[in-house]
Amino acid sequence: MIDNEFVISGAKVLMPDGTVDTANIFVSGDKISKIGGGDIDGCNVIDGRGKFATPGLINAHTHASMTLLRSYSDDKSLMDWLQKDIWPIEDKMTRRDIYWGAALAAVEMIRGGTTAFADMYGPCMDEVAKVVDESGLRGSLCRGLISFVDGDKKLADNVALYKNFHGAANGRVTVMFGPHAIYTCPPDYLRKVAAEASKLGAEIHMHMNETLTEINDSIKNYGKRPFEVVVETGLFDCGTLAAHCVHLSDAEIEIIRRKKIRVAHNPGSNMKLASGISPVTKLLAAGVTVALGTDGASSNNNLDMLEETRLAALLAKVDTLNPLAVPAAQALQMATDFGARALGLKSVGRLEVGCKADIVLWDMRGVEWQPNFNPASLLVYSANSAAADTVIVDGKILMQGRELKTLDEQKIIAEFTACANRLTGK
Amino acid sequence: MIDNEFVISGAKVLMPDGTVDTANIFVSGDKISKIGGGDIDGCNVIDGRGKFATPGLINAHTHASMTLLRSYSDDKSLMDWLQKDIWPIEDKMTRRDIYWGAALAAVEMIRGGTTAFADMYGPCMDEVAKVVDESGLRGSLCRGLISFVDGDKKLADNVALYKNFHGAANGRVTVMFGPHAIYTCPPDYLRKVAAEASKLGAEIHMHMNETLTEINDSIKNYGKRPFEVVVETGLFDCGTLAAHCVHLSDAEIEIIRRKKIRVAHNPGSNMKLASGISPVTKLLAAGVTVALGTDGASSNNNLDMLEETRLAALLAKVDTLNPLAVPAAQALQMATDFGARALGLKSVGRLEVGCKADIVLWDMRGVEWQPNFNPASLLVYSANSAAADTVIVDGKILMQGRELKTLDEQKIIAEFTACANRLTGK
Repeated sequence: MIDNEFVISGAKVLMPDGTVDTANIFVSGDKISKIGGGDIDGCNVIDGRGKFATPGLINAHTHASMTLLRSYSDDKSLMDWLQKDIWPIEDKMTRRDIYWGAALAAVEMIRGGTTAFADMYGPCMDEVAKVVDESGLRGSLCRGLISFVDGDKKLADNVALYKNFHGAANGRVTVMFGPHAIYTCPPDYLRKVAAEASKLGAEIHMHMNETLTEINDSIKNYGKRPFEVVVETGLFDCGTLAAHCVHLSDAEIEIIRRKKIRVAHNPGSNMKLASGISPVTKLLAAGVTVALGTDGASSNNNLDMLEETRLAALLAKVDTLNPLAVPAAQALQMATDFGARALGLKSVGRLEVGCKADIVLWDMRGVEWQPNFNPASLLVYSANSAAADTVIVDGKILMQGRELKTLDEQKIIAEFTACANRLTGK
Repeated sequence: MIDNEFVISGAKVLMPDGTVDTANIFVSGDKISKIGGGDIDGCNVIDGRGKFATPGLINAHTHASMTLLRSYSDDKSLMDWLQKDIWPIEDKMTRRDIYWGAALAAVEMIRGGTTAFADMYGPCMDEVAKVVDESGLRGSLCRGLISFVDGDKKLADNVALYKNFHGAANGRVTVMFGPHAIYTCPPDYLRKVAAEASKLGAEIHMHMNETLTEINDSIKNYGKRPFEVVVETGLFDCGTLAAHCVHLSDAEIEIIRRKKIRVAHNPGSNMKLASGISPVTKLLAAGVTVALGTDGASSNNNLDMLEETRLAALLAKVDTLNPLAVPAAQALQMATDFGARALGLKSVGRLEVGCKADIVLWDMRGVEWQPNFNPASLLVYSANSAAADTVIVDGKILMQGRELKTLDEQKIIAEFTACANRLTGK
């Protein structure tokens, strides 16, 4: 296997400024060592001709093991879905379920050109760390913290997760703290989380302002909107990735800007659950880092970041009635560079010398790529994720010619299916 | 090649009522002769195990040859896009361009599980009819009529198209009349179109109420909204497929209902061009047949009906803030049964004994189909169109195992690319 010292020759390359050039990309160890012309004689060569090289897509908000509940409960109201169908099954999940659920998610992400993800789920996040290690992906993991039952124990889990895994696998595994949401974590608990996280220098991953119910309950319980409540707990001083941010007042956008909070926009999930439309053009105009996420597979229903990128571009246009909103290159920046920033990753998310070699080669032979006037536009508006041909993370090839190199897909599907059937009694 | 007398064995089958059963589908000639159990010994068998059989998807509004302009001009305002970039190139299109543009569209539609399409474009629609004939697809074609230059000549073209092609290729080619829109066809011209169409018993395919500008201009010029103007011309008495219908008053919805107008909803194009969101849940509640279309590839930017189906389901939910709006089975009905009704096709769009054998088999082996609790939901919310494995129209296999049976894809891409490059000077 060609690995860790190779050149991708003659690909169309998405540059950090959003332009596209034909170039060679030289990879040495885990980094990009050169982009441009130059002699490739004697090099291990991956033929990039007819392929479009972009930074790997970054899923800035998901719950990987929820793949187990994909299409188990669709077309329901949010609370029926969550309380009657999802939570009772989640209560039954074992360590083994978490592992195989995340393993299937890893296959799906690699196959779709995703190279990194921010994951929040329940117990046994060390199993997700194991999947990150084995798959070759990058994962920013947190223990989802719901204070009501065993809040202190869960917080201790997150501390242990951080101590055991932050920086593991050559830095591919990182750890954040995961207070679930304001309606599951009262301010006193958030203060405790902030204290533990800041002791370790850890960042925060939290659901914020997803539904109108959440906003209304916050105003009822605290007399303030969620960002106004949480900012007073000091939590945002740790550095924060805030998922959803659908319903925002101007004052809350100002808190987001001032506290340098990174937003994970989840258009597919927000549409499917009818949560609403996040004001991403306002956030971007305010200089906020808006990344993209799929949310869990039971509310999306996949982990397809290319689809999310297209939805972000389309939804912003129709929401603002402005066809110039979130053009293709900006949508790709949100899915890559801004994704890396959202996860707190340095030197990731751009095809640039010295950056980590996290690269996707998209096969442009399909009819939906013809004529080929503008690869970035074609990727966002026309292609689908089955065009992901080669996926490289940290200089290592995870998929080539759509063949997985690190994971045993058939075994994973078999074990995963057994878990899903046992959990749901199907 | 197994053809015209075969059985699809052991597939999951989407029934007309939206439920899914495991069954055999027997095809004899151009029709479905039986669905259910029964002896398959001695039959030509297509192995349907692990596959999901649905009616072919029906693209109720497109401009096939516009594939030539895919991603030639993106992220522009509607009028800059149309007047500065699209129309000048369209003026240069030759007979050869129309043919190869439609041929590439046919490849793309078959590969995405589309079996029929309603097409409106400029001169030389007989070339599109030729592509329909050769590809094995169904096409409902019309000559796009813009009155300003040579309006009578164009109308005569449409009459000739009807006389020469309506009912051709075992009924796979049908013809409508194509008055482009109210802003390109004044009422007097629409009266002429209505007269010619009704003489032949032909139906109408027209853009209606796509943008706010169109509505405002109609009110300014005629003192009425577009449907109120057009209904007085008698055009709708011919039977009408109205594309877009984004901005509608209650009085217009009542005209649509009363005149049994079928609507082609184009969510992708309406989002990308920032036209607005069609009130599909109101239309459906009024009993209107709402089908789905991609619009042309230069405003979508593909002909992927599965993507359009998902967008229809997602957009209706977030627009109404109701997660129960347009559930998966209804979205599939819009993309199939309602599509057939929109095109005026009888015995098409349902997997039912006596109906035309227009069938797609979706390969459910991919990870995005796991776990497999609900194939209809998985198809709409999780799968992508690369899962289209086998496509059958009129009992004839157009694709099997993703291999095209009627069209030479490589030759089409080569000829198409030459046309696109010449047209755009690239």
